[in-house]
Amino acid sequence: MMGLACDIGGTNTRVGLVLDGKVLQDSLASYPNDDFADFYQLIDAYLNRVGQARIEAVCIALAAIATAQGAQLTNRNWTIERDKVAAVCGTGYVDFINDFEALGFCLAQVELLATTPLVVGNGALRNGPRLVLGAGTGFNAAAWFPPRFGTAAHVSAAECGHITLPLQGEEEFFLQAALSRGRGRASVERALSGNGLVEIYQWCCQRSGRSPQFQTAAEVSSRAVEGADPDCEQAADMFLRLLGRVTGDLALAFLPAGGIYLSGGVTRALAPLICSRPTFHHAFCAKGRMAEFMESFSISLLLDDRAALSGCAEWLRLSGQ
Amino acid sequence: MMGLACDIGGTNTRVGLVLDGKVLQDSLASYPNDDFADFYQLIDAYLNRVGQARIEAVCIALAAIATAQGAQLTNRNWTIERDKVAAVCGTGYVDFINDFEALGFCLAQVELLATTPLVVGNGALRNGPRLVLGAGTGFNAAAWFPPRFGTAAHVSAAECGHITLPLQGEEEFFLQAALSRGRGRASVERALSGNGLVEIYQWCCQRSGRSPQFQTAAEVSSRAVEGADPDCEQAADMFLRLLGRVTGDLALAFLPAGGIYLSGGVTRALAPLICSRPTFHHAFCAKGRMAEFMESFSISLLLDDRAALSGCAEWLRLSGQ
Repeated sequence: MMGLACDIGGTNTRVGLVLDGKVLQDSLASYPNDDFADFYQLIDAYLNRVGQARIEAVCIALAAIATAQGAQLTNRNWTIERDKVAAVCGTGYVDFINDFEALGFCLAQVELLATTPLVVGNGALRNGPRLVLGAGTGFNAAAWFPPRFGTAAHVSAAECGHITLPLQGEEEFFLQAALSRGRGRASVERALSGNGLVEIYQWCCQRSGRSPQFQTAAEVSSRAVEGADPDCEQAADMFLRLLGRVTGDLALAFLPAGGIYLSGGVTRALAPLICSRPTFHHAFCAKGRMAEFMESFSISLLLDDRAALSGCAEWLRLSGQ
Repeated sequence: MMGLACDIGGTNTRVGLVLDGKVLQDSLASYPNDDFADFYQLIDAYLNRVGQARIEAVCIALAAIATAQGAQLTNRNWTIERDKVAAVCGTGYVDFINDFEALGFCLAQVELLATTPLVVGNGALRNGPRLVLGAGTGFNAAAWFPPRFGTAAHVSAAECGHITLPLQGEEEFFLQAALSRGRGRASVERALSGNGLVEIYQWCCQRSGRSPQFQTAAEVSSRAVEGADPDCEQAADMFLRLLGRVTGDLALAFLPAGGIYLSGGVTRALAPLICSRPTFHHAFCAKGRMAEFMESFSISLLLDDRAALSGCAEWLRLSGQ
């Protein structure tokens, strides 16, 4: 039974065919959203391209909350109606899932995805829950719990970007004041996102007395990785300290003995520094008498930007489609 | 098939018989640990009392990590060997689970337990995961995820007491400095525990210039609830602000649309102030643009101190015992 997996991002939409709970690698495609007037045209173009006339079930991952009727994209003027997707695809089975929930479901088949190890755990832990988290436009996480009592696995959705940003010590107290200005508080994604990295960079510039030279997270992260600018390097160092601490806190909440997977554009851009500098892992392990326990977790980078499609495939499999 | 549920606390051990995944109310008993040389004598006394000769399966909840051989209590010089429990009970089936994991499993049958509503959600949420958390000797949480895809429910264990204590603003910065002194950091349970309440109280006294009059969390919490001492009241207010914030952060991590249940001795002692003052719920909802969403969560107090036994019963049911 052939299914369709879609991952609608802010810029591109990725699409693939699903058979027996797996994405067919030859069927993968990615389209710039700007090339289409609406989502239905995009899907229509895809189905024509792959020559697939009959789709039995559809699963769409997106950064929006779906209703019975469909979903409204938050960062683009696209409304996606369930009925219209059904008409284009010729099936009545259309599910919407949150983009991070999709990443949670893809952890069931993470062995099939491209990953690279960042931290190898000390071997005490192997099996158990898996956690995916990451910083991109925003921040979020999802946990995958393996089957227990002979039943199916479970995925938990979250809104971790809105958790209180955990800060400590005098330097970070001043950072908190800067990030909270005009907002009353600082959430995790106030720092751990593309905009967050830029705000941390501007704060570093203010402290060093230099004028900010860069405007985007891509610029700040690439200069930091190259070691080409002291303010970018300091901003990246603070970002990785906070990311390590938050990742450690979420590890204590979900106990992902089966591994932690980092995703997201900003995380990926700064990943070389996670390996080459102690900042991230030091902050991750700094949990008092739990420090040794924290060293048992393995942490990998999720390279495959089609991971959410695998999550849609897993969702369709679990749904019996 | 008759099972045995045990909840070994620091002071008392609660025991009950289990039939078809439910604790038999008439069989419940609680024994002071000090009255027995070891756990086996306690169980032997119980089985003689209830006149139950044949036990088919045992589940023991305790604040310790169990190995294949058994467990060593952290706060009492008791070693509990699996083989010896098996010999006393006449069964080869002996499981150990974490005490908070047991509370997580009891959420499956929370309708059978004594609870009292503290905050009634605005009705947008009804079904979904349930979360139990609480402050007592330490702090922890566990989440129960309802069956999905027609399979069994899932419970996730955690070590939430070691998460970074989320502090913000100048006053709390000074509190963090006090709580971190000599330790390098402040974890959630550094504040949200019996000892934590006393430390916050001492910090309040230092700021008010008065000498501390009370030494225990029970004294501080009862004086605060009675409105009989300004330092106790301030300490309770700070405690509830932090408890509300942490509860809100964990709600964002687990999205417990099915309800949040507070447990633990300190939480229970301060519960009247959760209802009578806005501090807790205000801090719970203070999540920026998620504030309205936060108001949708219902929060109850878990009154039943035998809840962990129900969790053991649910565990035995899921295990097919």
